[in-house]
Amino acid sequence: MLSVIALAQRIESGASTPSSLVDQCAEVIAQCEDGIGAFTVQDLDRARDQAAHAQGPLRGLPVGVKDIYDTADLPTGYGSPIYKGHQPASDAAIVSLLKRAGCVVAGKTVTTEFAHATPGKTRNPHHTAHTPGGSSSGSAAAVAAGMLPLAIGSQTAGSVIRPAAFCGVAGFKPSFKLLPTVGMKCFSWSLDTAGLFAASVADAAYAASAITQRDLRVDQGAASAPSIAVVRTHNWDHASDAMKEAVETAARTAERRGARIRELVLPSIFEEADEAHSIIQFYESAQALAFEYDRHRDRLSPALREALDQAAMVSPDAYDAARRTSHRARQALNELNDFDVLLTPSAPGAAPAGLASTGWPIFNRLWTLLGNPSVNVPGLMDDAQLPLGVQIVGRFGRDRSVLEAGHFLEDALRRR
Amino acid sequence: MLSVIALAQRIESGASTPSSLVDQCAEVIAQCEDGIGAFTVQDLDRARDQAAHAQGPLRGLPVGVKDIYDTADLPTGYGSPIYKGHQPASDAAIVSLLKRAGCVVAGKTVTTEFAHATPGKTRNPHHTAHTPGGSSSGSAAAVAAGMLPLAIGSQTAGSVIRPAAFCGVAGFKPSFKLLPTVGMKCFSWSLDTAGLFAASVADAAYAASAITQRDLRVDQGAASAPSIAVVRTHNWDHASDAMKEAVETAARTAERRGARIRELVLPSIFEEADEAHSIIQFYESAQALAFEYDRHRDRLSPALREALDQAAMVSPDAYDAARRTSHRARQALNELNDFDVLLTPSAPGAAPAGLASTGWPIFNRLWTLLGNPSVNVPGLMDDAQLPLGVQIVGRFGRDRSVLEAGHFLEDALRRR
Repeated sequence: MLSVIALAQRIESGASTPSSLVDQCAEVIAQCEDGIGAFTVQDLDRARDQAAHAQGPLRGLPVGVKDIYDTADLPTGYGSPIYKGHQPASDAAIVSLLKRAGCVVAGKTVTTEFAHATPGKTRNPHHTAHTPGGSSSGSAAAVAAGMLPLAIGSQTAGSVIRPAAFCGVAGFKPSFKLLPTVGMKCFSWSLDTAGLFAASVADAAYAASAITQRDLRVDQGAASAPSIAVVRTHNWDHASDAMKEAVETAARTAERRGARIRELVLPSIFEEADEAHSIIQFYESAQALAFEYDRHRDRLSPALREALDQAAMVSPDAYDAARRTSHRARQALNELNDFDVLLTPSAPGAAPAGLASTGWPIFNRLWTLLGNPSVNVPGLMDDAQLPLGVQIVGRFGRDRSVLEAGHFLEDALRRR
Repeated sequence: MLSVIALAQRIESGASTPSSLVDQCAEVIAQCEDGIGAFTVQDLDRARDQAAHAQGPLRGLPVGVKDIYDTADLPTGYGSPIYKGHQPASDAAIVSLLKRAGCVVAGKTVTTEFAHATPGKTRNPHHTAHTPGGSSSGSAAAVAAGMLPLAIGSQTAGSVIRPAAFCGVAGFKPSFKLLPTVGMKCFSWSLDTAGLFAASVADAAYAASAITQRDLRVDQGAASAPSIAVVRTHNWDHASDAMKEAVETAARTAERRGARIRELVLPSIFEEADEAHSIIQFYESAQALAFEYDRHRDRLSPALREALDQAAMVSPDAYDAARRTSHRARQALNELNDFDVLLTPSAPGAAPAGLASTGWPIFNRLWTLLGNPSVNVPGLMDDAQLPLGVQIVGRFGRDRSVLEAGHFLEDALRRR
């Protein structure tokens, strides 16, 4: 995989030129893309041209943009036949921020239909008969295959953390709205969260720092060992044996490196909040996709059509109650002390076989609802050599802490 | 002016047909539009066709859509030459909701540039040498001139309440996110709020009820007299003598009808929050309009260019501090008891002379920041026969209470 930090250092030192980064990616893309299908469209010639003039800490760095974000120079299909060939008039805000940091857009990456369930063409680079996860399928796969050092995605339930876990890359879902969602096709405005994929947590942190102009880097000296609470959640029975073992391994490995480990059983309000996520997503999607549902119903996938049929039945009262529940759960989480971060599965297990489903966001949606920052920490594998991702969840607005803890754990797993 | 409720009743009773409502509006538009300039584009023929098939409580009701909302069938320019002739691929969510309720889109209404400061062509129907207010200039003026019974707008600082006040119509800025902003050109995602204009508060409530499928109607029997706290805010010195008198008149008139009136001096956190509004708006606009700033800088108005230059200097730390301030102010407002609603000016005074500025949102931005529902209550005039609007602000999520209190006051002023 391509490291953001290593590439930035090569540019900084003059060992590489920005244009040569594009060449390097173009070569891997030429080798791998046919088998993986990470892109909806590539734009390498323009990327090469723009790299020559790029400024900023990420200058010349080719980035993949999930095709749920508008781009003024590239068609944006949102994973739906309704928008095939659609050309937006502007770039999404995060695309402009990437460009300001020096990135060049290498292409648009595959999303499921409107970032919901119906998959695109992308395959898992670790085993092409397995799903890469979704909805940010192409972004996760492009980074995992070494085609790109950086890609952006979005998460409404589990669409950053899960594909990162399935593809064995770092995924960073920041605190809600830390990265702007302006120009992202909306599915649920209370949940849609922009996120990043990179080779390692430190790489994701470096990129996030450059994009946000916040001090989020974790590659400049060792952070102190974090205090970690292992959270199995009420969904623990849905985790595979391999995943349960991965969480154990992560906890013990961190502990050996000096982390303080404790167990945390979440109060029942969090189980209610987990249910509230679906109600909020349904209710808002019925409005966010009202145009597509009313005018292009026959061009929605059966799965999305059914979801929107169901969504139309959620009452304002049920929605308001779900929002109150999520508010109470946020307060309850603030009141839980005695840990820096939580450790929990990123997904029920490794990437399932087959391409018909992108997997289940059961270990993600609670944290999306609450808006807490989380990272997928790669490094563990199951017996079939498929990646197993574990998730570090931090406190709202404490994005640097979650990145530091994720980096700490990733490093510990690497040295194991 | 055209009453939403009266028109809906005529349809219900068979006294009018949906298509005849469009004819009625078309006639007034033909008389008035040249002098007022409320529309960027009209679509009356299609509206007439669609009225014939419309279903729902607002069937056939012609609505004006502020040109900051995407429409799939009409060009959407966001008040900027950058987007002249731009044709979105979809309708904004609120446009779909209006259509579901039976409305037909009569046309797009004038917005200031990106709903910021630089005015469009619209004139105040009460005196065409005066500003109609902004940024929802066309929507307020179209309702005031009797060209339309209903129009939608948006408020990031004072863009619903202020033009409603200047034009002498009811303006309803609901609780933050009660009406969806999906498909609205974003200026500041923490502040942008969709709102409505109608002839009276009861009309606005009727329309809001139909659009949201929430029980917001206030025209079905008398509500009990509210307990009203008069809030002068630290900006009181900026109110004109006529406005100060209007607030007094409103309070005394409500009191005579049975309302309980008290004075409330806001704690200093609200003055801090008022400052925080600008910081949040600046910071977010620098990202929301990053594409336009980076690629089309020369096609921005000087005022917006300067605002975005300044916006680029707001640090993440200043933004985070402003968000914490607004959070604390929300909590502080929740802790203030002993009133149902607040009474405060809608604007510093009546519409200023001249069209170069749309006025000052100094009495609006605090309530936009906090997300509380508010209504402009029309009915008072200054000596020059220009409307003076007073504002009722309610508790977050208690939209019906604010509409009831606004209706109570409007009715009391009418019977004065």
